Amino acid sequence: MAECPFCAASLADISFMDSPRFRAIVNVAPILPGHSLIIPKRHVESLLALSEEEVAEMVNLSRKAVARLTQVYASDGFDWTIQESEAAGQSVPHLHLHLIPRSRGDLPDPGDWYPHLIDDRNRVRLSHDEMKRLAQRLRAERTHG
Amino acid sequence: MAECPFCAASLADISFMDSPRFRAIVNVAPILPGHSLIIPKRHVESLLALSEEEVAEMVNLSRKAVARLTQVYASDGFDWTIQESEAAGQSVPHLHLHLIPRSRGDLPDPGDWYPHLIDDRNRVRLSHDEMKRLAQRLRAERTHG
Repeated sequence: MAECPFCAASLADISFMDSPRFRAIVNVAPILPGHSLIIPKRHVESLLALSEEEVAEMVNLSRKAVARLTQVYASDGFDWTIQESEAAGQSVPHLHLHLIPRSRGDLPDPGDWYPHLIDDRNRVRLSHDEMKRLAQRLRAERTHG
Repeated sequence: MAECPFCAASLADISFMDSPRFRAIVNVAPILPGHSLIIPKRHVESLLALSEEEVAEMVNLSRKAVARLTQVYASDGFDWTIQESEAAGQSVPHLHLHLIPRSRGDLPDPGDWYPHLIDDRNRVRLSHDEMKRLAQRLRAERTHG
């Protein structure tokens, strides 16, 4: 699986939070500021391949990441989604949970996030350096309360 | 919160699986066959209001429900999503995780599920009896392996 983008060594640069078996990373083509992913550190394709303990660890890391994102991006809510298998719209075959901080009025309609999510071609891709800077900012922020 | 549809007494009829604090129910306006919801039994608005233990229980129930749905609907995958807050597209202010079994070719494009999800007006609403029958079918199925 050397070519899996979520197994690449450069991933450490763009992580901003982790747990023993999972990490939160900046998304290469954010549909809105702060769009991040929670991924397992080992190559796992499916949510169903995780143990109950791992699922709990994954979701609890995603809650912590959401709290950080909400603080940094001053957001009012978030979308939280997994697309399991190609039939469901999964693009990279390495399990990933999308976290998208949302603010009132960020899109013409609150539901517009999903068409953006699946519209890969028109999403601006960040450079590795841009992602690195975003991750640094997210790591540096302190949570107050 | 007497008017919350996810706190209604009739909910027991349309549940097909539960854990001490959560239940899996049939969705009133499925975007595809098997579209279900995982909800807390008590009225909770936000994922962030749950304890770590509750989050683990919720997600593990949703994994079991997905396995059941995949078996009954012979699906190839699923979409799994939470919209947290109105800004993110949440309609009913009682936490709910959407589970949508997916099959190859079920929609013209795999990503078409989301526009359907948010298009409340055009989704056919099931009667209470139809939902009851669906829940009975899902309860009756035995998982093999």
